[in-house]
Amino acid sequence: MAVGNGTFPSIGQIDGLRLGVAEAGIKYQSRKDLVAFEICEGASVAGVFTLNAFCAAPVTVSKRHLALAQSRMLIINTGNANAGTGKQGMIDAELMCSAMADVSGLKAEQVLPFSTGVIGEKLAIEKIVNATPKLVESLGHTSWEDVASGIMTTDTRPKGAFRQFSFEGNTYSLAGVSKGAGMIKPNMATMLGFIATDVCVEPGFLQGLLRDITNKSFNRITIDSDTSTNDSCILIATGKANNKQIADGESDLAKLFVAELTSIMQELAHAIVRDGEGATKFVEIEVSSAASVEEATKVAFEIGHSPLVKTALFAADPNWGRILAVVGRAGIDQLDVERVQIFINDVQIVENGGRASSYTEALGQQAMAPEEIKIEIVLGRGEYRDRIWTTDLSHEYVTINAEYRT
Amino acid sequence: MAVGNGTFPSIGQIDGLRLGVAEAGIKYQSRKDLVAFEICEGASVAGVFTLNAFCAAPVTVSKRHLALAQSRMLIINTGNANAGTGKQGMIDAELMCSAMADVSGLKAEQVLPFSTGVIGEKLAIEKIVNATPKLVESLGHTSWEDVASGIMTTDTRPKGAFRQFSFEGNTYSLAGVSKGAGMIKPNMATMLGFIATDVCVEPGFLQGLLRDITNKSFNRITIDSDTSTNDSCILIATGKANNKQIADGESDLAKLFVAELTSIMQELAHAIVRDGEGATKFVEIEVSSAASVEEATKVAFEIGHSPLVKTALFAADPNWGRILAVVGRAGIDQLDVERVQIFINDVQIVENGGRASSYTEALGQQAMAPEEIKIEIVLGRGEYRDRIWTTDLSHEYVTINAEYRT
Repeated sequence: MAVGNGTFPSIGQIDGLRLGVAEAGIKYQSRKDLVAFEICEGASVAGVFTLNAFCAAPVTVSKRHLALAQSRMLIINTGNANAGTGKQGMIDAELMCSAMADVSGLKAEQVLPFSTGVIGEKLAIEKIVNATPKLVESLGHTSWEDVASGIMTTDTRPKGAFRQFSFEGNTYSLAGVSKGAGMIKPNMATMLGFIATDVCVEPGFLQGLLRDITNKSFNRITIDSDTSTNDSCILIATGKANNKQIADGESDLAKLFVAELTSIMQELAHAIVRDGEGATKFVEIEVSSAASVEEATKVAFEIGHSPLVKTALFAADPNWGRILAVVGRAGIDQLDVERVQIFINDVQIVENGGRASSYTEALGQQAMAPEEIKIEIVLGRGEYRDRIWTTDLSHEYVTINAEYRT
Repeated sequence: MAVGNGTFPSIGQIDGLRLGVAEAGIKYQSRKDLVAFEICEGASVAGVFTLNAFCAAPVTVSKRHLALAQSRMLIINTGNANAGTGKQGMIDAELMCSAMADVSGLKAEQVLPFSTGVIGEKLAIEKIVNATPKLVESLGHTSWEDVASGIMTTDTRPKGAFRQFSFEGNTYSLAGVSKGAGMIKPNMATMLGFIATDVCVEPGFLQGLLRDITNKSFNRITIDSDTSTNDSCILIATGKANNKQIADGESDLAKLFVAELTSIMQELAHAIVRDGEGATKFVEIEVSSAASVEEATKVAFEIGHSPLVKTALFAADPNWGRILAVVGRAGIDQLDVERVQIFINDVQIVENGGRASSYTEALGQQAMAPEEIKIEIVLGRGEYRDRIWTTDLSHEYVTINAEYRT
């Protein structure tokens, strides 16, 4: 199940980037389970990674390599997360890099490794090493859709997005893919995200941008409140568009670029939610007039994580009492329940701490019917707001997660 | 579904207490949906209540009445929680008390009201008021099993427990009932608990005891991480055993009493988990060698709330990677993953931040097979510990919560 039709968009080339895929047979045969991004010299590369203390070996290695050298290659395998694998996992992650470096004339520290799949099983490193020559051969003959398909795990469909914008007669492009369908929660989701642009951006500024916009996109989605050990998002700016390097947010070009980057990262994050395990609804939760942004974020996530709210969404049941109960238990200091208002798709369901006088069951049913639901909570406490995106909780979620691995 | 056979135990009388039930027809016809406890003069009565800011009207009224006068009567309805019902809800909760007071010769403030069921719908107060004469007539002709059945909502079976102990030739008794199957999380569960003893206990000490032991029982269970608006637990000490009043924990009798009270409250709390919505497993999660009790509690609840861990438990799949990932994201400051050990039913699954060397898939399958599962996390940081009890997440949980109310 998934929300929306999920047709893969048409994505153009990003100058300075070549894509590759290969079959390594890591978990399944006849599946392209190895992906590469070859990055031109002189590009800026930024990365954000899971905050899970048990971060996977490739996360540790990617962070180190990113700091050591200019990254020229990404190698990504699916089928195995190489997480919870101890010292052997670190050796295997380093081997992925050195093998890829050997066949492409790079140093190992110029390669960043990524893994996704089952936790706690030894990586089939020989299969990966053996497939690296084919992976390098495929560079430049691979589409974004192949890459998006190559990084899937329980995803039901590949996820990609594309943007182009013009400024002073030049055209600039951004392209990206993402994966993830379960174990999705902020900081970060079980997700991989790879975004590339031909815009020229100073590396330090690019890293700051990636961090900020991740907090408005990938770090604001939740499917089942679990955070993966492997989450990573990489942003590549090849600079091949030959603009004057963007080093802060002041210029008109910088503002346009930031807006487009935010838009594409949100689309890629939303694509993960729309393909959430067993999802039948795409739900935006906005909390406004909070006393702080943190308070707004907390209330939104408490609602997004509530199994009772999520099963009510699955049933398209306007059980506003469950939403109200979550707001009440969210730990807000001195909440004045009389000031709380709740809306579902613009139908007011709660006012003055109880059912809204204008509310009828028929209006509630109607508001809950669409695939896309917006829940708005007005706390009546201040001027801050935040929003997150999530799914419902369906039978299929249980089926997928009770059967995965077996 | 539920764990264990759940046979209702044989429960003896508590001197100084009379039980009653009646049919009010609040939500369903031909169902005993109204319950009363009549308490003798001179008894000590203690109460703990939900911390949800949207606490239901009967919770507000019970708290006030408990402070105002000696409680002589409890009246409990099922079928409607009288929560999220605004000012009308307060009026209805007061009416429940005054109606019950009128037919039993008490003052309204001597009556404590409790409601459980759907949130956000007006209470059928006339039906309750009309049934109070029958409710009073039934006092003394009602069993503990009738009472336990009378307070059920989505529960599949009545829950009760009984203890007797002897000291210096005298026999003392404790009896109790609980309800709750979903919307269960600490502080407190969607639960009602009513416990009575004939032991004579000073009221202030009784209140402290109830608070402490609730933190080892009802506040340490979770089914779906949601906290109800109506949770209440009442502890009645009639004093009819005529012991020297217990006013602190020093005497031998006090120590025996505290041990038996802890035991009965844990049994009643566990009964809620065993009857958890769709539960097929009863799971104890113990976190030890934590740097503080709070840290142990937090990690235990993070595991108990994880949908991925809960679906793996449902599948009896020893997916220890999911448990490891939750420990890693639980926000422990400077966790040394190398020191973490994890056991399932005494089988070591994790050591040194990875799969235990002695672990095999066959051992894991065997450990996950029983209905009763103990998950132990050793953090390797200090000397504190805590434990909680929870269930798995099954298809039936989704069915129940997607269909309840419709």
